[in-house]
Amino acid sequence: MTRLALNTATTKYVTLAEAVRVAADAGLTAIGPWRDRVAEVGLEKATTLIRDAGLSVSSLCRGGFLTAADAEGQAAALADNKAAIVEAATLGTSELVLVVGGLPANPEPGAAALPDGDRDLIAARRRVVDRVGELVPFAAEHGVRLVLEPLHPMFAADRAVLSTLGQCLDVAADFPQESVGVLVDTYHVWWDPELENVIARAGREGRLALYQVCDWLLPLAADPLLSRGFMGDGYIDFPTITRWVADAGYTGAVEVEIFNAEIWEAPAEQTVATMVERYTRLVEPYL
Amino acid sequence: MTRLALNTATTKYVTLAEAVRVAADAGLTAIGPWRDRVAEVGLEKATTLIRDAGLSVSSLCRGGFLTAADAEGQAAALADNKAAIVEAATLGTSELVLVVGGLPANPEPGAAALPDGDRDLIAARRRVVDRVGELVPFAAEHGVRLVLEPLHPMFAADRAVLSTLGQCLDVAADFPQESVGVLVDTYHVWWDPELENVIARAGREGRLALYQVCDWLLPLAADPLLSRGFMGDGYIDFPTITRWVADAGYTGAVEVEIFNAEIWEAPAEQTVATMVERYTRLVEPYL
Repeated sequence: MTRLALNTATTKYVTLAEAVRVAADAGLTAIGPWRDRVAEVGLEKATTLIRDAGLSVSSLCRGGFLTAADAEGQAAALADNKAAIVEAATLGTSELVLVVGGLPANPEPGAAALPDGDRDLIAARRRVVDRVGELVPFAAEHGVRLVLEPLHPMFAADRAVLSTLGQCLDVAADFPQESVGVLVDTYHVWWDPELENVIARAGREGRLALYQVCDWLLPLAADPLLSRGFMGDGYIDFPTITRWVADAGYTGAVEVEIFNAEIWEAPAEQTVATMVERYTRLVEPYL
Repeated sequence: MTRLALNTATTKYVTLAEAVRVAADAGLTAIGPWRDRVAEVGLEKATTLIRDAGLSVSSLCRGGFLTAADAEGQAAALADNKAAIVEAATLGTSELVLVVGGLPANPEPGAAALPDGDRDLIAARRRVVDRVGELVPFAAEHGVRLVLEPLHPMFAADRAVLSTLGQCLDVAADFPQESVGVLVDTYHVWWDPELENVIARAGREGRLALYQVCDWLLPLAADPLLSRGFMGDGYIDFPTITRWVADAGYTGAVEVEIFNAEIWEAPAEQTVATMVERYTRLVEPYL
């Protein structure tokens, strides 16, 4: 289990201290905190707390939301992402995950499109490239890599106009390897007919920054964001995808990141125990 | 409105006779029936009923569900699709839409995966190619084209392992143009970063068999299949995609196919009137 990491979104309702304790007790060696859990205790204390438990930080979730069309929204996004870069560097992780944001037709995720809202997907994608370009020098100064996360196409309207791993690699290609990477989250990419090829390409191009695992459950939850489950409970073929990631030369952390109302209600120890069992059976042997 | 067609799924609760009457009264020239509405009145009567109203048939929905791993399931799928081919030919349409089916992990759409279910996506996709190959000679004899429909990736587990237009074109490439085509349904493909290129490719390769339009609504309906809406009510940029379809040389019907519980409850005349208004404003000028 030297590569298994707990993303704090999986144990959403516990504090960072509690998540760290549960992860360390279960024998994990890394944790991937969300920024809200870090902010709650303060950056310095969060850093100490994780380090004192003997854990490393696999990634920081998340920056992004870079698609605003107006100058004010763009300036706010840059400021927020610079803060996130500093947080990642302080926490001691090089990997800052970016969820790049959706269409301006309604900036509120999950909400109906505004009648006269901006639906120009191509322009929104272009703005992501522009904003990433503006952040790269700052990220490089801090030794942090901006990790582009393709989100499942069902989130293209409201959460991320980057929808495939190939598209993220195309964006990354303009920037240095050490400053822009990509993430494979099984939930978001498992369906992609090009997946084997693009994972290999990500490895070849030195961009594979993080591997996150969780399953695709049906029926979809009322909020589809919460339709993620433990590996083995859904439709994803973890041995196959994990082999592709391993064959691409990935040797980093494997984060379990599950948004699921039922799992959130369970005791964190139980969640981590199940996570470890599923990882040991369905992921680790294929790494 | 010479190219606008009513897909009967848009007016789900009315009979074929009623849908035909409403379409003809609104000045439409074509209708795309689903097989259940045809079966209800019988194939011969359905054919006469549509012809007598002066309408043509833009497509027949739908065949498919070709991913069964067992011999019995495969034989049943072939028999059902041959019946659909005969129905299409009798109705006077060359276009039979295929929704190819999901993973065998649970053959029931929308249901949770069975614990020991088959999650091999690559094998399921291979079986689609095999079944299409077996159907092509029969389709060719009847002058019918098998129209591969990429479904949105959120349906990859349970409804269609063909998830992108490019993937459908790759499958089609092994077969004659007149026997295997592809369909652009805005709901399923609008998010695809390769969309402009693949629509152009579909035109170049002579595969563009049908253009279906409806919008992507948020929040997603509890059953995401029903989250389709009138053009203009969601996040899709119809002028842009319609221009790409036109530039690809497509000159056929534009079907409106909306699954939406609220729209189904409305009077069919009202639904068709709204559909005409939206088409006239957001689609037709760009064709």
